[in-house]
Amino acid sequence: MIGDFTYENPTVLHFGKDAVSSLGGEVSKYGRKVLLVYGGGSIKRNGVYDDVMAQLSLCGADVTELSGVMPNPTYEKLLEGAGVAREHDVDFILGVGGGSVVDYCKAVAASAWCEEDPWEKYYVRMEEPSCRVIPVGCVLTMVGTGSEMNGGAVITNVEKGLKVGKVFGPALFPRFAILNPEYTFTVPVYQMVAGIFDVMSHIMEQYFSGEDDNTSDYIAEGLMRSLIRSSVAAVKDPHDYEARSNIMWTATWALNTLIGMGKTEDWEVHMIGQAVGAHTDATHGMTLSAVSLPYYRHIKPYGLKKFVRFAENVWDVDAAGMSDDNIADKGLAALKAWMIEIGVVMDLSSLGVTADMLDAIADSTFLLNGGYKILSREEVIDILKESL
Amino acid sequence: MIGDFTYENPTVLHFGKDAVSSLGGEVSKYGRKVLLVYGGGSIKRNGVYDDVMAQLSLCGADVTELSGVMPNPTYEKLLEGAGVAREHDVDFILGVGGGSVVDYCKAVAASAWCEEDPWEKYYVRMEEPSCRVIPVGCVLTMVGTGSEMNGGAVITNVEKGLKVGKVFGPALFPRFAILNPEYTFTVPVYQMVAGIFDVMSHIMEQYFSGEDDNTSDYIAEGLMRSLIRSSVAAVKDPHDYEARSNIMWTATWALNTLIGMGKTEDWEVHMIGQAVGAHTDATHGMTLSAVSLPYYRHIKPYGLKKFVRFAENVWDVDAAGMSDDNIADKGLAALKAWMIEIGVVMDLSSLGVTADMLDAIADSTFLLNGGYKILSREEVIDILKESL
Repeated sequence: MIGDFTYENPTVLHFGKDAVSSLGGEVSKYGRKVLLVYGGGSIKRNGVYDDVMAQLSLCGADVTELSGVMPNPTYEKLLEGAGVAREHDVDFILGVGGGSVVDYCKAVAASAWCEEDPWEKYYVRMEEPSCRVIPVGCVLTMVGTGSEMNGGAVITNVEKGLKVGKVFGPALFPRFAILNPEYTFTVPVYQMVAGIFDVMSHIMEQYFSGEDDNTSDYIAEGLMRSLIRSSVAAVKDPHDYEARSNIMWTATWALNTLIGMGKTEDWEVHMIGQAVGAHTDATHGMTLSAVSLPYYRHIKPYGLKKFVRFAENVWDVDAAGMSDDNIADKGLAALKAWMIEIGVVMDLSSLGVTADMLDAIADSTFLLNGGYKILSREEVIDILKESL
Repeated sequence: MIGDFTYENPTVLHFGKDAVSSLGGEVSKYGRKVLLVYGGGSIKRNGVYDDVMAQLSLCGADVTELSGVMPNPTYEKLLEGAGVAREHDVDFILGVGGGSVVDYCKAVAASAWCEEDPWEKYYVRMEEPSCRVIPVGCVLTMVGTGSEMNGGAVITNVEKGLKVGKVFGPALFPRFAILNPEYTFTVPVYQMVAGIFDVMSHIMEQYFSGEDDNTSDYIAEGLMRSLIRSSVAAVKDPHDYEARSNIMWTATWALNTLIGMGKTEDWEVHMIGQAVGAHTDATHGMTLSAVSLPYYRHIKPYGLKKFVRFAENVWDVDAAGMSDDNIADKGLAALKAWMIEIGVVMDLSSLGVTADMLDAIADSTFLLNGGYKILSREEVIDILKESL
């Protein structure tokens, strides 16, 4: 740990098969008028909607429903939600869904009473809210983003071709999250695997930065080891409760600020992936998997020591007699083998990206300075070409 | 993760060389009348007292001082503190010191307005407070107990020969903790090393229990690996900021409930160590180190798989061609070598324990049921004899 920091995480997590039984009590702490937010309606088919409504009825909530939140929530949808929240003057926003829904709820909570254009204030100028903020809570049905215990809220501006992540402070962290691994059983395997890779990517984005000895990196290694083991088990049997619960818990701690404390972070894979997402509407986790190996191969020489450590501590590569470069390659080869084993998308072509789109994607890619190499636009193009 | 659980940790952590600059702002959230609690006065010699008073003056606090908190805070001292807090009707209790001071502050905060005998209510019947509770914060000057981010509050009842740990809920977690690794530089090496072993013991107590695959155990392995590396560096150079800051951060996460989520826990080493402490007033961490190896050798056959994992994942024991029992032994041998390297106390005789005291210590030892083996009184005696 080198840098000074403040760690604060007020989210209360109710975890397990019976977690929803805490929902009514939690919601009633914040008032009666509840905005219930969800996506395409799968929660009505798998019983989660009924569980939630039973709890909301129990606590006497006055519920307004807002559905149709898309996988990449748009600026237009944000304005719609902010209008509904304001019009009904809701006391609380409850998201039921995956990271898109939870992200969206935070953005709505910060925008309902915002007197400026929220895109300009939060997504261009990256400011904190100066208006009243509506408290948010969530029932998670899909695992990956970590949105259940952080302030992240990614919104896509289709007109501008931008998918931008805003990280709000603790006032916009969910006040509580209901985490029942069984609620994730009906997620299609493609989405489950995309979520798993999103988690892995969150950890790697924080891990592959800095050279100091830092407790955060050791915790990150533990989380990766757990995720690797559990993901293989979950792909074999998606109803493996032990595996699904470990993945859910790892996802939460992969991106609730803990493993970034006291260190620099990269996040360039997310920048490239989000640019791909803005131009394709592809599943977030798969945009990350499609570009990760070319990206990490590209930056490997600039952070070689960390790639050696990754190989040894995460993948148990036996380093005896090998050069650092070889050890690092073995680590990336192990990462690749795992990606193939769990079945993530390995190239951009599978997501509908064609060579003529690469310039536009590169134009939408923010270039960050926390990783081992600050990319030029040309390097982004090279990585995209290699990812095709 | 198998068991259902709730995770909630409201403590705000300000970490780093400039952490104390947040103190005034934090304290002023809770009111003007502050009870300032500390131990033997070392904070007046090393400048911490002046830093704290400057911040309290800045926020206009009305300060009542209560000093003389001993390493093993007694029931009598608890009653004294509760009386002072009640008499001055303080809004906030600020502990400046190590785990003993912070534990003591929580016990006082729960006892000041308690209408019953706090020993009976909290330490015999293990109830939660039903009275008004005074909020607590802390400035940490010694690392080990993790008291800065949990509800633990160990109190010693000299008359009854008992040292008992009560774990309070989130209302008694410190509202904030100021963690400046430099504040720990003047701690004598003996105390620093005792704190380090206390941290290792906290992790092992949670790790050596249960056989399920659990993310918590992977995080625990990461914390142990970080602690082992940093402790060796800190013993070589106690002013190594990187090492001391990693130790401080690891200590916080070793016992803030995270790595116990979803799993069973042991804590029998603490039961034996606390019994030794009640009869000798020895430094807590050294009572743990003195009994740990005999204890773990004794329970090894009952949790062999976990001891094999400990050897491989924490100590990088090369398992090729060895029996599980041999691998486990290599792990415990590595633990022993590390203990000797950092210089912890390796036997009870060094703490003033004699053979004629063992019966009384065994009588004071609570026998728990979360570990790999529920000990009988005879087994406690055997372990104590081996530890002499």
